[in-house]
Amino acid sequence: MTALKRRILGAIFDMRLLVINPNSTAAMTVKIGVAAREVANTGTEILAVNPKGTPASIEGYYDEALSVPGMLEIIRTTTDFDAVIIACFDDTGLDAARCLTDRPVIGIGEAAYHFASMIANKFSVVTTLARSVPALEHNLHRYGMMARCARVRSSEVAVLELEHAGSDACNRISAEIDRAMVEDRAEAIVLGCAGMADLAERLTAQHGLPVLDGVSCAVKLAEAMVGLGLRTSRLGGYAVPSRL
Amino acid sequence: MTALKRRILGAIFDMRLLVINPNSTAAMTVKIGVAAREVANTGTEILAVNPKGTPASIEGYYDEALSVPGMLEIIRTTTDFDAVIIACFDDTGLDAARCLTDRPVIGIGEAAYHFASMIANKFSVVTTLARSVPALEHNLHRYGMMARCARVRSSEVAVLELEHAGSDACNRISAEIDRAMVEDRAEAIVLGCAGMADLAERLTAQHGLPVLDGVSCAVKLAEAMVGLGLRTSRLGGYAVPSRL
Amino acid sequence: MTALKRRILGAIFDMRLLVINPNSTAAMTVKIGVAAREVANTGTEILAVNPKGTPASIEGYYDEALSVPGMLEIIRTTTDFDAVIIACFDDTGLDAARCLTDRPVIGIGEAAYHFASMIANKFSVVTTLARSVPALEHNLHRYGMMARCARVRSSEVAVLELEHAGSDACNRISAEIDRAMVEDRAEAIVLGCAGMADLAERLTAQHGLPVLDGVSCAVKLAEAMVGLGLRTSRLGGYAVPSRL
Amino acid sequence: MTALKRRILGAIFDMRLLVINPNSTAAMTVKIGVAAREVANTGTEILAVNPKGTPASIEGYYDEALSVPGMLEIIRTTTDFDAVIIACFDDTGLDAARCLTDRPVIGIGEAAYHFASMIANKFSVVTTLARSVPALEHNLHRYGMMARCARVRSSEVAVLELEHAGSDACNRISAEIDRAMVEDRAEAIVLGCAGMADLAERLTAQHGLPVLDGVSCAVKLAEAMVGLGLRTSRLGGYAVPSRL
Amino acid sequence: MTALKRRILGAIFDMRLLVINPNSTAAMTVKIGVAAREVANTGTEILAVNPKGTPASIEGYYDEALSVPGMLEIIRTTTDFDAVIIACFDDTGLDAARCLTDRPVIGIGEAAYHFASMIANKFSVVTTLARSVPALEHNLHRYGMMARCARVRSSEVAVLELEHAGSDACNRISAEIDRAMVEDRAEAIVLGCAGMADLAERLTAQHGLPVLDGVSCAVKLAEAMVGLGLRTSRLGGYAVPSRL
Amino acid sequence: MTALKRRILGAIFDMRLLVINPNSTAAMTVKIGVAAREVANTGTEILAVNPKGTPASIEGYYDEALSVPGMLEIIRTTTDFDAVIIACFDDTGLDAARCLTDRPVIGIGEAAYHFASMIANKFSVVTTLARSVPALEHNLHRYGMMARCARVRSSEVAVLELEHAGSDACNRISAEIDRAMVEDRAEAIVLGCAGMADLAERLTAQHGLPVLDGVSCAVKLAEAMVGLGLRTSRLGGYAVPSRL
Repeated sequence: MTALKRRILGAIFDMRLLVINPNSTAAMTVKIGVAAREVANTGTEILAVNPKGTPASIEGYYDEALSVPGMLEIIRTTTDFDAVIIACFDDTGLDAARCLTDRPVIGIGEAAYHFASMIANKFSVVTTLARSVPALEHNLHRYGMMARCARVRSSEVAVLELEHAGSDACNRISAEIDRAMVEDRAEAIVLGCAGMADLAERLTAQHGLPVLDGVSCAVKLAEAMVGLGLRTSRLGGYAVPSRL
Repeated sequence: MTALKRRILGAIFDMRLLVINPNSTAAMTVKIGVAAREVANTGTEILAVNPKGTPASIEGYYDEALSVPGMLEIIRTTTDFDAVIIACFDDTGLDAARCLTDRPVIGIGEAAYHFASMIANKFSVVTTLARSVPALEHNLHRYGMMARCARVRSSEVAVLELEHAGSDACNRISAEIDRAMVEDRAEAIVLGCAGMADLAERLTAQHGLPVLDGVSCAVKLAEAMVGLGLRTSRLGGYAVPSRL
Repeated sequence: MTALKRRILGAIFDMRLLVINPNSTAAMTVKIGVAAREVANTGTEILAVNPKGTPASIEGYYDEALSVPGMLEIIRTTTDFDAVIIACFDDTGLDAARCLTDRPVIGIGEAAYHFASMIANKFSVVTTLARSVPALEHNLHRYGMMARCARVRSSEVAVLELEHAGSDACNRISAEIDRAMVEDRAEAIVLGCAGMADLAERLTAQHGLPVLDGVSCAVKLAEAMVGLGLRTSRLGGYAVPSRL
Repeated sequence: MTALKRRILGAIFDMRLLVINPNSTAAMTVKIGVAAREVANTGTEILAVNPKGTPASIEGYYDEALSVPGMLEIIRTTTDFDAVIIACFDDTGLDAARCLTDRPVIGIGEAAYHFASMIANKFSVVTTLARSVPALEHNLHRYGMMARCARVRSSEVAVLELEHAGSDACNRISAEIDRAMVEDRAEAIVLGCAGMADLAERLTAQHGLPVLDGVSCAVKLAEAMVGLGLRTSRLGGYAVPSRL
Repeated sequence: MTALKRRILGAIFDMRLLVINPNSTAAMTVKIGVAAREVANTGTEILAVNPKGTPASIEGYYDEALSVPGMLEIIRTTTDFDAVIIACFDDTGLDAARCLTDRPVIGIGEAAYHFASMIANKFSVVTTLARSVPALEHNLHRYGMMARCARVRSSEVAVLELEHAGSDACNRISAEIDRAMVEDRAEAIVLGCAGMADLAERLTAQHGLPVLDGVSCAVKLAEAMVGLGLRTSRLGGYAVPSRL
Repeated sequence: MTALKRRILGAIFDMRLLVINPNSTAAMTVKIGVAAREVANTGTEILAVNPKGTPASIEGYYDEALSVPGMLEIIRTTTDFDAVIIACFDDTGLDAARCLTDRPVIGIGEAAYHFASMIANKFSVVTTLARSVPALEHNLHRYGMMARCARVRSSEVAVLELEHAGSDACNRISAEIDRAMVEDRAEAIVLGCAGMADLAERLTAQHGLPVLDGVSCAVKLAEAMVGLGLRTSRLGGYAVPSRL
């Protein structure tokens, strides 16, 4: 981006959110950017990007690990942002990213869990493949949010299936929501993949309970934190790395 | 409020937050309203109110219990709001309030805990009197946030002392923050009283770590939730009461 | 009660238990009084009362919140009792009540949980409506008793249905007990409503496992605590309120 | 005991509590019996006994293990009791004992924890030697009572020191209570040894907070459970052993 | 064993594992010894023994309690071993045994849990009778391993049935493994009885997931600990008993 | 390595452990290799390696994230090993590594925790810098081992200081062990850095309690798991990545 273009944008927008899709599927980055833009304030600039060379989708621990350095590099080399959103539901590399900047860094999984816990006694998560479930459970424990999560369920819909127009992905997710309502007594549902961002509204109406999408939750949370002037602590675990 | 006045305000503001101070000290309500206004978006109307006949301050379980019905009555009889903020740090009557409306209801304690958990590995709470500590610990457990809280500390500053200009309240709170940094390895501090709303900025600068105030956190969280169109679930524990 | 009547009763009885039904259904108060009387020692006087103006039954957070001040007022204005029993299964206002008197205050939910944990490795709770489940789960966590509770189940029997002679309430509760035995491996059952006090004996015989009723449990626990001379601590969370 | 003597006692007493001191120090059994008798109802017969050949005191896991079979043998061969009290603070062999009889079996540790959790938000335990602490912590976790216990402290007073008139045991215990009040914010204290039964009253008065002794707590709890007709569940973990 | 025989064995073997079957069924001890021998290093001597007079099998708390002193006596009177293995899946008397020797003492349940947690996110346990489940759950909590255990399941195969050639025990265990894979999303299975030691390999092949047997796990863990020169701590809970 | 050299080594050794130091400090890799070799069986080949281009030491989340891909690449391109040891105390990339191979993968932190929990009721960890503490606490929670860990302490000794002959690192670690023994009642100590591998023996002797080093623990654990033929589960979270 040229310095001029940057200056013009700065005159238009109040804040700039760096929204990183850690996988390398550009179509998904576009979809995430659209979802982010849709809920953002007028004064919020959305910069949706993805690293190159990372896996095409993140399904489980291995894909996640390979996506982190590329994502961190984007944060390290982008200086003019007010907050970072990690737009993969396993909150890829969240702690490492927080060491790199004192601007708020928010994972979309985390954002959805926190909101869900304030509108429901118990929520369930409906994610993609079974292989992703343990990583999500592990995050829920760390955040303390397992106290409010009834169950993490897999719909056996692969991430990239969500990008195919003709797939019955939404039906399978909907069927899993039905099961969560009956078996888990879930009072709200969190959709466990950035690629499901466009389904939340429809599923909320269809099932009569709140269905949350992490991308939009993270955008509003980031705006809130920037508005508050909150900064990530530089003491303890998020201290500035000595060899940055 | 006349229908006309209401219509004019509706033309000016995008959303209206009902900020309830559950105790009956009007001076504190004013202070809370100022703190809320300060961080609110231009388009957000702040309506800061308090019930009559409730205790002058809320210090412990008994005061809390006596303040709930008056607060609920305000919610029940106020219809044109987009979200409710309960501006007492023990999140007085939060669950009951959520049964009364599907608009988001946010406690200031809860709001501060959630934000603190996203900018620090561990935070400590510095509240007023020792008698208030168990109720806060109990909330932290329910929200799942005890997983991120190192300790709830009392400064032995009474709520109403915070309203007296000449008191050394801020010094005592500051000394407790020092102890939290050393003894608890706290990476952030949450101020445990609505009456401390005006101290957060100064203490953040003084101690070099994030110091969070619940009132401002709740306002930005409420704006975020309204912006997302989130509604409290009507299934399970927050179902509409049968005899409303 | 006249001073004379009071003096005569004092000569007959060793101790006096103030049994408060926090809802305003007098028929239920009578039933609770009968159940309490049935298990009480000869020397124990049962004073079963209910506040006026509180909800007709307590089903969920909202009813609970509205019932507390009336209940506290009874405690505050009744001086000659040796212990208080809160005869609603969600232990309505328990902590606030403990601030009002150093005499033991016991909730019927709490009483049943403690006993159940001493005669079974795991127990399940069978309560009335789904909307009451989260409040009970929340109590179980606070008391530490979730460590011994397999599950809180709702029978979808409303509180006041239990007062109707012809209802099939007992059958539906019994069916839920069957499920708890198979699905939860429950070794004992706690009945989750004061209005089920008269069913425990029959269901114990029918299902061949201990079925506990909170009212009777609380009466015997209160007698035990009075016999021990135990007083509620005045340090910390149950300190005497400053503005009583 | 002759059949005649038994019949006469049966005419005098309503119920009979078998109070077993699992160690073999008869002087301690006498002291326990006196403490039990002191709080028991007039109609409650106290039968205080100890096995032969078990350790002189129970300090840690090894002594505990050696004491169990002798204690179980007493239960197995004594048929005419209404409840069993295990009068060692580590609740020696509690689960095994519950398999042997459907009459209530109560450990004195357990009894004190349950009562303490109903009169205080948090309690601390003051026991004898450091070597006994892990076993008590382990019990507290099982019972769920760790949720209410601030800390288990050792006074470094050996069990049998408590039997020596001239020892400064009580002073050392008292000093530990002081520390618990300041460092743990304990609202009540549980004395962690059957041999401390005679100190509770004095220490309660001295320190101004409830100090609980397990022996007396267990007696009143046993009377309550017998009064309720509660029986240990025969399903699951406490099923009747196949080779009894 | 004669001193000569002992000296010869010492020349052949590097270390000696005392494998104690706490029950008195010699055939089971033989089977355990064979399973241990099969996985042991060439330099490891396996000494498989059982006490006399203990129950024929250990099913639940009561059998367990009766087996401990005989097992402890074996440890106390056997001096020339490098580690002890307690070959009953409820880790009978593990803590007491650790007080008796500073050589490593390992329970077969514990050994299997630790290994399972390092090859699977979640494992389920398939044990014998329902009556044994609570004791195993209790151990899992103490070891911290409940964090990784999805569920403890009973196959309703009695311990001694496993010794009968013609029984369909293995089929019933296999059916329970199927259920664990579907209902618990278990990624590995731990067989919950020493008598199942010979089934692990077959069931691993049949079900396509790791099926662990505690006996072999404990042998390799013991060899590892002896190789490391690890000794049980003599501080705190495992201090040398004063009256050994 | 030439095919010939490989064949010769295969004839000499029973198993081959791939010990990866995820940082790029070759001197540290050598030290780790020596520590590993020292406790390994004669038949165990130790192949100690480190990736190139990773940070010189791993101190906190950021260094950790940057080290993972290089470490995974070593695993992916090395085929002839029987188990992998991740020789950094934060168990860098452990879950991702388990997706890459069905051979056992063991972190040195994890290995030390599991052993410590079998020789002590409670252990404390003494690590390098405060910034590393949250990551270790987080691991302890996941493994379930926080149930046995009293506290994670930092000695404020940087990783590379441990490589300098003249530093007083060992004294500072020793002082921290003293504090852990008094303040945490720790019964054993786990050294929280691969670079402390050479200090364990000396500190064990000096302090009179077990002091564990993760490198040696992991080697013996790996030998045990290879000896058992254990394989990482391919179901659920450790399923083979689809795009390997």
